Amino acid sequence: MDLEFRTARRADVPVIVAMITEDPVTASRPSSAVEPDYYVAFEAVDADPRNELIVVESDGEIVGTMQLTYIPGLSRRGGERAQIEAVRVAVPLRGRGIGTAMLRWAVERARERGCALVQLTSDKARTEAHRFYGALGFTASHEGFKLLL
Amino acid sequence: MDLEFRTARRADVPVIVAMITEDPVTASRPSSAVEPDYYVAFEAVDADPRNELIVVESDGEIVGTMQLTYIPGLSRRGGERAQIEAVRVAVPLRGRGIGTAMLRWAVERARERGCALVQLTSDKARTEAHRFYGALGFTASHEGFKLLL
Repeated sequence: MDLEFRTARRADVPVIVAMITEDPVTASRPSSAVEPDYYVAFEAVDADPRNELIVVESDGEIVGTMQLTYIPGLSRRGGERAQIEAVRVAVPLRGRGIGTAMLRWAVERARERGCALVQLTSDKARTEAHRFYGALGFTASHEGFKLLL
Repeated sequence: MDLEFRTARRADVPVIVAMITEDPVTASRPSSAVEPDYYVAFEAVDADPRNELIVVESDGEIVGTMQLTYIPGLSRRGGERAQIEAVRVAVPLRGRGIGTAMLRWAVERARERGCALVQLTSDKARTEAHRFYGALGFTASHEGFKLLL
């Protein structure tokens, strides 16, 4: 499968939101149509040089999305952290290696940028995803704590 | 204990670096003096409106530090995530509630900003810290994956 990676555009927002909300875990959160808030969030990400919303296309269709955030800080000798959030692959296309290609691409991008590490958290219910991240070289060394406001 | 929270200044960098590296877990990573890289990282954080390096003072001395990052994104109806990294309390002052006060302050700041959630990861070796985050209302719902580059 030929995959093309690019930065998301405003016109991609409905597709991205659909991918985020149709995910089994995310779908259990309050559902939503494409409301103005999503566009406000898109503009914020798009304008921020330390955030990249990525879409992956195959034959002109979006088959995956993820967000990369580059966090500066004083830990690890001042090396940036690359953080991956909101990884989603289109439901009918799962199991074909798209997720692996996306993560490899993200790690390579972080490496080229000179980041000290790549990090992500994954819901404990997503046990398949955990094997997947492990196979890519990630270590489940941390507990991921969340507090909803 | 009277605690005062403020944004870190360039002159605080050596103290912050010492706090980060004397931590038992961080200390097992390559140690370092205060090299120019730390100042480059400080300037990057200081110039970024979505990153705040915080220090906590008591009687004019820095007793704690943490970094807050506000991550925009399309998950959760476009609500920002507040992420807490590099939480440290001066070793001789641990167990006096400084960490609790810091986390409460961070959560309140995220709430005032309108963030949808607060998140952090904690090394699985820090079991005491986990009880502490749980007592503050955080849920260890996620696995935290890291990949060193």
